[in-house]
Amino acid sequence: MSYEFELINKLRQQLSGSVSLRVGPGDDTAVVQCSDGTCELLAADMLLGGVHFEPDADPRLIGRKALAVNLSDIAAMGGTPKSVLISVALPKGADIAEPLHDGLFELAREFDVQIAGGDTNSWDGPLVINVAVTGELAAGEEPFLRSGAKVGDWICCTGPLGGSIDGHHLSFTPRVLEALSLRDATTVSSMIDISDGLASDLHHILTESKVGAELYADRIPLRDNIASAPDALQRALGDGEDFELLFTAPSAACQSLLAEPPAGCQLFHVGKIVQSETTLIHPSGDREDLKPTGWQHCL
Amino acid sequence: MSYEFELINKLRQQLSGSVSLRVGPGDDTAVVQCSDGTCELLAADMLLGGVHFEPDADPRLIGRKALAVNLSDIAAMGGTPKSVLISVALPKGADIAEPLHDGLFELAREFDVQIAGGDTNSWDGPLVINVAVTGELAAGEEPFLRSGAKVGDWICCTGPLGGSIDGHHLSFTPRVLEALSLRDATTVSSMIDISDGLASDLHHILTESKVGAELYADRIPLRDNIASAPDALQRALGDGEDFELLFTAPSAACQSLLAEPPAGCQLFHVGKIVQSETTLIHPSGDREDLKPTGWQHCL
Repeated sequence: MSYEFELINKLRQQLSGSVSLRVGPGDDTAVVQCSDGTCELLAADMLLGGVHFEPDADPRLIGRKALAVNLSDIAAMGGTPKSVLISVALPKGADIAEPLHDGLFELAREFDVQIAGGDTNSWDGPLVINVAVTGELAAGEEPFLRSGAKVGDWICCTGPLGGSIDGHHLSFTPRVLEALSLRDATTVSSMIDISDGLASDLHHILTESKVGAELYADRIPLRDNIASAPDALQRALGDGEDFELLFTAPSAACQSLLAEPPAGCQLFHVGKIVQSETTLIHPSGDREDLKPTGWQHCL
Repeated sequence: MSYEFELINKLRQQLSGSVSLRVGPGDDTAVVQCSDGTCELLAADMLLGGVHFEPDADPRLIGRKALAVNLSDIAAMGGTPKSVLISVALPKGADIAEPLHDGLFELAREFDVQIAGGDTNSWDGPLVINVAVTGELAAGEEPFLRSGAKVGDWICCTGPLGGSIDGHHLSFTPRVLEALSLRDATTVSSMIDISDGLASDLHHILTESKVGAELYADRIPLRDNIASAPDALQRALGDGEDFELLFTAPSAACQSLLAEPPAGCQLFHVGKIVQSETTLIHPSGDREDLKPTGWQHCL
């Protein structure tokens, strides 16, 4: 078990008695119950030069991505993003501060997110950028958790997968509006954003929901740039950084939803929730165990 | 003007129309107005190995400091800290994750702050830790801003200054309780925490309040480890990382406060606010211009 998961377990034990923290470490965001009935969502992501982006990547796109991954976390809870705090360590001598912030501000304006503050440093190391985000659920709105999937639910995602390394991982649009449309249109039982990869992120839902799944190999949507590659399916399952939403909903609700998707929202039905075991079903009828092998956050 | 201050100005222009952001970048924390009359405080600080701490510093103390500097920001606004998000980049192979988090959790428990989540990475670079914090002001409570100092106000601080490099900068206690006591006891007109150094941080108050100050050289409290050094005064003015509170209050209120300080709260009267110009007054009566030369956040 990686240190991150150990840490999350340790925190969960420590926080079990906390009054206002409804959801702590281990979902896409934390959920804090506010006294007026609303909930606050909190998340943070740190991007490191040489790990999450090539050192020579366009700083405007790095800034954009640093915010986008956080908005994707808020989307995965079905919330509305509100404010962000931006911390950066700028490599001395590199003139990237302005395009970095421009890329970030541009996306912030697009999603009506306010830049509340942050911390600017310079150093001899590579670029580091951390964005912390707050979001909101209106009174009466429940967060979309990883733990709500039920046997019989259908599994869907909001766009094609795999091959994000071609640039998609820097330029994707976080599915904030799609998540809000899904909240209006149907009964979402669980949701996550696909950052580690379909196989890995599906397993997060399955583990938290204590269920299994069948995934239909021929229904998994492939991004154009990998569609004809011999390992296309494997890449759609494992590449990660797709930042599409993966969700479950009762089958009847899903059928209506797929017949009439919300405006501007692509939907793909890729599998269903079962009692236990997780299998990939090929068109031939062959079944194989689906392992949670996702992308390892390393270039 | 440094890029950080340019950025703050740019943000201030962009945010001037924001409805819920009462105070944006440029004070110790941002202040978000909530619909129930309370305010949320938001701040973030990034600590970098080799910049903010020696690479061989005790990881327990680094974790502690990463949270403490954020609690100090919440204190400087007169608020109560609530939740934190912790992002770290751990140097590969260094076994420091556990003591780092232990130091942080220990301080979190002491101040009843909940760890809401964060992001854990490992890389080939030095340790990086970013803490983002939320805090709260009750309905009707006003934040202690840098912009409220008035001519005639007295200037006070909560503890001795200078020489923090001896270890104080890693082990200080954030003045959260002192700030809350001061809110109960008197009418604070402005406040900041001393991170850059007394001279520099006083100038932040003066610039935002559009006033000047007289500082009494013989009243500036000196930390024991520098008290007998020939450059003690200069160090108290410029070393920084003291993380004491620097505040102003009307003179009459200050006199009562100094006569009967809140329990457990050290107070030192170090100067007064004047119309313009900022001078350091020596016991001889000699006056010299006080420049905002603070510590430069580099070891």
